[in-house]
Amino acid sequence: MKINIKKPSLILDKEKVLRNIEKMVDKAKNSGVKFRPHFKTHQSAKIGEFFREQGVSSITVSSVDMAKYFSKHDWKDITIAFPVNLLQIDQINDLAKRTSLDLLVESKESIHFLSENLKFPVNAWIKIDVGYKRAGISANNVDLVVELGKEIEESDNLSFSGLLTHSGHSYHATSINKIKEIYQDTVFKLHKIRDALNENGFSSVQISIGDTPTCSVVEDFSDVDEIRPGNFVFYDVTQMLIGSCTEDDIAIAIACPVVAKHKERNEIVIYGGAVHLSKEFIVREDGTRTYGYIASKAEKGWGPMIKNSFVSSISQEHGIVKTDEQFFDKIKIGDILMVLPIHSCLAVNLLREYQTLEGESIKPLE
Amino acid sequence: MKINIKKPSLILDKEKVLRNIEKMVDKAKNSGVKFRPHFKTHQSAKIGEFFREQGVSSITVSSVDMAKYFSKHDWKDITIAFPVNLLQIDQINDLAKRTSLDLLVESKESIHFLSENLKFPVNAWIKIDVGYKRAGISANNVDLVVELGKEIEESDNLSFSGLLTHSGHSYHATSINKIKEIYQDTVFKLHKIRDALNENGFSSVQISIGDTPTCSVVEDFSDVDEIRPGNFVFYDVTQMLIGSCTEDDIAIAIACPVVAKHKERNEIVIYGGAVHLSKEFIVREDGTRTYGYIASKAEKGWGPMIKNSFVSSISQEHGIVKTDEQFFDKIKIGDILMVLPIHSCLAVNLLREYQTLEGESIKPLE
Repeated sequence: MKINIKKPSLILDKEKVLRNIEKMVDKAKNSGVKFRPHFKTHQSAKIGEFFREQGVSSITVSSVDMAKYFSKHDWKDITIAFPVNLLQIDQINDLAKRTSLDLLVESKESIHFLSENLKFPVNAWIKIDVGYKRAGISANNVDLVVELGKEIEESDNLSFSGLLTHSGHSYHATSINKIKEIYQDTVFKLHKIRDALNENGFSSVQISIGDTPTCSVVEDFSDVDEIRPGNFVFYDVTQMLIGSCTEDDIAIAIACPVVAKHKERNEIVIYGGAVHLSKEFIVREDGTRTYGYIASKAEKGWGPMIKNSFVSSISQEHGIVKTDEQFFDKIKIGDILMVLPIHSCLAVNLLREYQTLEGESIKPLE
Repeated sequence: MKINIKKPSLILDKEKVLRNIEKMVDKAKNSGVKFRPHFKTHQSAKIGEFFREQGVSSITVSSVDMAKYFSKHDWKDITIAFPVNLLQIDQINDLAKRTSLDLLVESKESIHFLSENLKFPVNAWIKIDVGYKRAGISANNVDLVVELGKEIEESDNLSFSGLLTHSGHSYHATSINKIKEIYQDTVFKLHKIRDALNENGFSSVQISIGDTPTCSVVEDFSDVDEIRPGNFVFYDVTQMLIGSCTEDDIAIAIACPVVAKHKERNEIVIYGGAVHLSKEFIVREDGTRTYGYIASKAEKGWGPMIKNSFVSSISQEHGIVKTDEQFFDKIKIGDILMVLPIHSCLAVNLLREYQTLEGESIKPLE
């Protein structure tokens, strides 16, 4: 690795990133669906180019600001997959002037506001809640969806694209079969709503789905029109434990200096805390938490995960690594440990600079 | 409030900040101890000036980078309260050339490395663990502390300042009396070590303590030489629940646009998630989590906390506010809710821009 690490640093294995992208591009192609990757995970124009080189031209983002950033970097087909924030109508109009912009709506209030305030055409998706219970109209509320569809069609600057969902409950799935069940259930619910829309005179209602577990595990997407996974570009420990990826697919790690050791409890103190890894954790079988898994630094970035070793607690800048005697004795103050993140999106958002194994620096949102 | 809010924004009530600083300055003065506030909470040169105007000239930070930033802003007496990161020795030397620099050590390896590599004098504190079990030498290991003290004294560029601790376990205290007990226990343990050092020929060994709960609740600090609280400048929901502050002392809130509503479960979706509030949470009595408390926007920033209303879950950009029917019905899409953060340090680190009620923008680390 051609990097001189002095403080917590986000290390990116470009080869793995390209492989993760290629797999998903191929999968979408084989199913004949549109691939509209979510760029909120990497938030970087340079990494965006890795996608463009593989033929991707449509993207998803989670905020108006992110849409502005990628629009500036020449992306011309952008979905903001977040309930439209009416307070940013000026920026939305500015974007709509320059790009093919897709927004999410789930209420009459928002549709009416857009009808009155949009100055350029945008596409509107109705956000459907298929069970995650975060945002969207409940999939049982078919009548309301039909009603909103009609309101969208009546609006001058809105075109009705279709039904969009994020089956975020797949993150709580306990097996690959459970994820596949969630996908089947999602498709069933969305088809039912589409049928109702078709009966009401709508045509070409598209279906867009988006979570990384589903998109990683399901092979055939011919029942939908578009997939929008994001996290798969890097994956992380959460995805590995769900079964969305293998350890070898995890494409980023956070390099953290060792600053202290406590033999009496086999704990290593690293410079790497909540402002680097985020406070996202996984509850282990014994009820304790882990904020990251541990690997050793290696020529090609990092080696295999170290058994019995994990970040057991964090504060603002400190991380505590619990390990066994064998690994403890190998590590010296001033060494570097590599932390595989629990949630790569949040770690990237905090660290704001990637370093590739070749020593290149990539800054998100720059 | 003279602010036009369009997206999640960190709002700062300067009057409250000044009051929080003044209280702590007075408390330190009355006890005759040095006040060396921790600047990791606000990370801002401008807010640093609020302290300077009240006579503060010594500060604490948690990283070499933060020390560099404040040194550039003319702070000349800085403690880096983190086990010294040997990999940043060049930056440490650069700082030591220009400022009175205090470092934390807790191992022979670090002391030897500093002895060999320091080019300018620095002060060294031995980090003592009085029960938090994060970093530091166990307070029971008096012999090791004496040994390290001698090694420090033998080093050309190191001067032994004394014993430093962070009683972080006070954050888990369940009552004000419990916090006071932790303080008494901390003092008892540190005095015992100081006595042993004195018996071994050391003199003027100082004692430095640092957590906000203790510094907020204890009135008389004459048993120690220095206090280093940080969070008190803004406080937050965690501190309020511990009993370190009242609701009225919380000096920051995150303004979040309302983007959707779900009547069937009295939930409001806000634009404000893990990348704004952090994933820090408190477990409620019923076992559910809260990621922030809710207040209404008001002329003077925000009003009193809304009963039965809290952020119940968050993802990258979404926050879900659970509330009751009464408040639910008052709120419209496009309104702003004010979120009182669980952990102000982490929210500030994420949002990276304060807006005062008067409309001034303050950017940390700029």
